[in-house]
Amino acid sequence: MQDRHTGAIGVGVVGLGRAFMLMLADLENDPRFNLVAACDTRSSARESFSSQYAAPTYSTVKALADDPYVEVVYIASPHQLHKDHAIAALAAGKHVLIEKPIAIDLASSRAIIDAAVGSKGNVIVGPSHSFDPQIEACLQIIKSGKYGSLRMIRTNYYTDFMYRPRRPEELRTEEGGGVVFSQAAHQVDVVRLLAGGQTAQVYAHTGAWDRKRPSEGAYTALLKFENGISANLFYSGFAHYDTDEEFQWMSELGIKKDPAQYGAARRLLQTIDDKTEQRLKNLRAFGPDINSQSPAGNEHFGGLVLTFDQADIRVTPQALYIYEDEQIRTEPVLPAIAGRRGVLNALWALVKDGVSPVQDGRWGHATLEVCRGILTSGKSGDVQIMCEQVPVPGYPDVK
Amino acid sequence: MQDRHTGAIGVGVVGLGRAFMLMLADLENDPRFNLVAACDTRSSARESFSSQYAAPTYSTVKALADDPYVEVVYIASPHQLHKDHAIAALAAGKHVLIEKPIAIDLASSRAIIDAAVGSKGNVIVGPSHSFDPQIEACLQIIKSGKYGSLRMIRTNYYTDFMYRPRRPEELRTEEGGGVVFSQAAHQVDVVRLLAGGQTAQVYAHTGAWDRKRPSEGAYTALLKFENGISANLFYSGFAHYDTDEEFQWMSELGIKKDPAQYGAARRLLQTIDDKTEQRLKNLRAFGPDINSQSPAGNEHFGGLVLTFDQADIRVTPQALYIYEDEQIRTEPVLPAIAGRRGVLNALWALVKDGVSPVQDGRWGHATLEVCRGILTSGKSGDVQIMCEQVPVPGYPDVK
Repeated sequence: MQDRHTGAIGVGVVGLGRAFMLMLADLENDPRFNLVAACDTRSSARESFSSQYAAPTYSTVKALADDPYVEVVYIASPHQLHKDHAIAALAAGKHVLIEKPIAIDLASSRAIIDAAVGSKGNVIVGPSHSFDPQIEACLQIIKSGKYGSLRMIRTNYYTDFMYRPRRPEELRTEEGGGVVFSQAAHQVDVVRLLAGGQTAQVYAHTGAWDRKRPSEGAYTALLKFENGISANLFYSGFAHYDTDEEFQWMSELGIKKDPAQYGAARRLLQTIDDKTEQRLKNLRAFGPDINSQSPAGNEHFGGLVLTFDQADIRVTPQALYIYEDEQIRTEPVLPAIAGRRGVLNALWALVKDGVSPVQDGRWGHATLEVCRGILTSGKSGDVQIMCEQVPVPGYPDVK
Repeated sequence: MQDRHTGAIGVGVVGLGRAFMLMLADLENDPRFNLVAACDTRSSARESFSSQYAAPTYSTVKALADDPYVEVVYIASPHQLHKDHAIAALAAGKHVLIEKPIAIDLASSRAIIDAAVGSKGNVIVGPSHSFDPQIEACLQIIKSGKYGSLRMIRTNYYTDFMYRPRRPEELRTEEGGGVVFSQAAHQVDVVRLLAGGQTAQVYAHTGAWDRKRPSEGAYTALLKFENGISANLFYSGFAHYDTDEEFQWMSELGIKKDPAQYGAARRLLQTIDDKTEQRLKNLRAFGPDINSQSPAGNEHFGGLVLTFDQADIRVTPQALYIYEDEQIRTEPVLPAIAGRRGVLNALWALVKDGVSPVQDGRWGHATLEVCRGILTSGKSGDVQIMCEQVPVPGYPDVK
């Protein structure tokens, strides 16, 4: 067993699945963090973890949270388990980093918030793409007031999300499946951060058009904020077009895509049965056959344009293109390969300095309220009024 | 005076302003049409017209419509005058081509429809960009069913519309000013044509942020159609970003833009007073100092992506990019420099064969209902239910 007491923050992982895989490289490469324990239902994943990190694995979250070397419990289990896992970790007085969405129903996210109130631990919900450095750069510009008030946000993403290998519950809305819980959670987080956080109204259309993949695979929504800012959201996880094309084939995860792989996800699905799909999904999780690619650029979440009084900003993972009154300025996004550094910085600040980021439990709850508003509005055709929103500290008044 | 009886269709023009200017080259170059009469309040415009076309001008629309050589009355007067002008032309039994929007209130468009019922003349509302050849090509693909059902449409346009020289009423909503009447009329026409015509619900945000240009200069709207198709519309006429950049700087009118002219509209406005703005607006109208540029490609109305079950289509003025299951196909848009040929073909078919295009009076009325729905929803925050919509003939069922 390694020396688990290194001065770095000890992270205990709950759920060695796909989400953890996407954090793994950054956690490993960041000397501020140590992987000191894990919990998973798959014995192969537990064994791989143990041998790779010389660290114990536990069969319950409570046992993991009681490990004195665990300072942060990273909850990367399926959405519908977040509540129980977060409450167990908070009961042990540990900080928790919860993968988005915080939960799939508002009662669960409220329960997590309540558990944090009575705990020494705090909650961060992330990493969503609201932690990407280009979003932080935009927020700084908004706060500077340099271009007057922000008025409108337009964001869109075309992906093959619905045709990647999935567990059955990932295609059942009531269990947290479909793109609204998984993907709108990103888009709403980004948009709320840029617009000041306090969504007033949500109106949306949702689409579940593929009977073989029966959950909502696409949505489009208009969000109106208390300060009057308007946001236009579009997501299709049924898409053939791939927005990454607009970013020199840089993927959501900052990994270069090979355009020759066009259509691969659909092609693969047509040749396999449900059991093989499960196996492929597991291959994307942590285990003995890890196969991770290094990022070549920043993560992102599709097209994003901000409309200010005195400028428009077109946001890409590589640069901000700022269309001013007199000229177009290009600002490179730095760092250029940030990975998940944003959320890890936030986690460090929370544990070491007691400073919480915007994206805490209440924030995640408010984002979930908007996501659920998208689903409800899509079904009912009505405008949904939001009641549990929280502001971005220091956000300027819209004039 | 020229021989006005040439076998070509005699066109009498009401309003020698900016709209007429945009039709002029195509009317002149099309041997099927003859400019045989005009009516305008500006004597300089009347004199130029008379001397250039050896054709009479009239002081009233009634007198123009009574000219036996006038077979079609082309109503290119300000929006709020369309009703009286169309009714006068229809009373004389003449066909009318009315610039979009058909009117600015539904009582007026209803009055035009009623006048057509009792007349030998019929109504075409156009040219909107729904007559552009790339839109016709998309409609043929939709009707073919080749890619299954159309599900979602996303369209957007960033322009400096609000900063071009304007007459005062073009900046007063109640008189038909702002981008909803002038520009949504295009976007809604395009989207309705592609989605089957029958809008069920409209929800929108509108923005009027510049006190010096006080009408709505931006909007974003979600349209739900009776057949379930969803459309996402975005327009900013306050923009610094210019969507034409995405189309190799091909403008809405198919004219190549010089990127070095970036910001020119705003710069100009800052140096001139209201009176000079009027004069500049008039310079864009018909008169002795005509200064027209030849198109280099097709007209368009900004970004447009169609999401089908089995493909996405990204529409540009140059080509359709069709993202199929297995490959990306490129279909050139033909003709490549169509100008306003679409609406002129429709006018010819109406006059010679009695065949009306989709874009008749009832269609224009239905588009106006949606535009007014955008304004009302933007003000009230409520979903607007549409009641006066008409279908696209031959549009396939959505499965």
